[in-house]
Amino acid sequence: MKQENPKKAVVLLSGGVDSSTTLALAKKEGFECYAISFDYGQRHGVELEFARKVAQALGVAKHLVIKVNMRDIGGSALTDEIEVPKNGITENIPVTYVPARNTIFLSFALGWAEVLKAEDIFIGANAIDYSGYPDCRPEYLKAYETMANLATKETVEGKMHFHIRAPLVDLTKGEIIRKGRELGLDYTLTWSCYDPRPDGKPCGQCDSCRLRQKGMQEAG
Amino acid sequence: MKQENPKKAVVLLSGGVDSSTTLALAKKEGFECYAISFDYGQRHGVELEFARKVAQALGVAKHLVIKVNMRDIGGSALTDEIEVPKNGITENIPVTYVPARNTIFLSFALGWAEVLKAEDIFIGANAIDYSGYPDCRPEYLKAYETMANLATKETVEGKMHFHIRAPLVDLTKGEIIRKGRELGLDYTLTWSCYDPRPDGKPCGQCDSCRLRQKGMQEAG
Repeated sequence: MKQENPKKAVVLLSGGVDSSTTLALAKKEGFECYAISFDYGQRHGVELEFARKVAQALGVAKHLVIKVNMRDIGGSALTDEIEVPKNGITENIPVTYVPARNTIFLSFALGWAEVLKAEDIFIGANAIDYSGYPDCRPEYLKAYETMANLATKETVEGKMHFHIRAPLVDLTKGEIIRKGRELGLDYTLTWSCYDPRPDGKPCGQCDSCRLRQKGMQEAG
Repeated sequence: MKQENPKKAVVLLSGGVDSSTTLALAKKEGFECYAISFDYGQRHGVELEFARKVAQALGVAKHLVIKVNMRDIGGSALTDEIEVPKNGITENIPVTYVPARNTIFLSFALGWAEVLKAEDIFIGANAIDYSGYPDCRPEYLKAYETMANLATKETVEGKMHFHIRAPLVDLTKGEIIRKGRELGLDYTLTWSCYDPRPDGKPCGQCDSCRLRQKGMQEAG
């Protein structure tokens, strides 16, 4: 039976493994989910087609694709004329890091969440099998949440309190995929590669492809 | 004589009284200024023409106008089909509040600042003669700064430290205008009205027009 007034959540959805699993988890918790994706001039714009497939398959209440020009800011291999590394994951933060990306994405999610009266904002951030991006770490997410609760009319008036939810933050890629499979998520609907080949296939060598392969192997 | 390697600053510039004065102050401090404005579907899109005039008159190094669609998020008289109030400033946060606006704007400024290696981000936020917007208050700006320093590659690697600078936050509108005049700022280059009349003139009755008039009177 359908719940009468389910709680709403805004879910950041890139179309990759992590955000798609996060959406499945939010659904499992009973939230009415509002997915938000970004057309930010990313080299792998194809991921948006996969975000649409996942949003449809999981049955979101609405899927918003926001167009933002991050190429004017540049400074990343994903939005600028910088080559995507293919030599394996290193200890340093790689050039695929996009300046302030999660901060920008969460800020649109925050605005939409306030309008929808959705107190929970889900993000597929992960700080285990990841590329070392600073805006995927728990301390960043905590500071974002504190700021968010000082930023908006509804919170300042005491009517809402935002929670930045990152349910995958401490999981390995294998654990994430096992969890998604338990929830019936079909990972062929997801996309990971940062630098698709001219024939449209994943390159198989960028960090994102490597992490996906690692996860699939671990999950069997 | 031109300074050899002036420090860079990113300045949020709407084309209004406060942000224009803030830009003049940042210039006065010796910063090489990078102005950033937003075409966010605002009812008073005309302000962007004034932002361009001010940026040119004050001689910025670059002026970026970022197009972001905030109409899809809605929830404000400035971006949605909600009427702009004309009855005077009230104690409540008015419907001209735009959900997460400064958070979204600062986040683009943060990304650009990281790419430019600019540690100072200036915003014309004011918590005295203002409409009560939560994202103009010092406690919000402080929390944003804390979050920003956890969000980016350059700060996490210890190479940069961001400062969110709001030099007008404690000034009255009259004090702001007096300060700008001392710096030679021509306020006919600025725009305040939220709801321009069909003939392109300011309405004279919205909060923003009222605050401008109050400031001009106070400043003589």
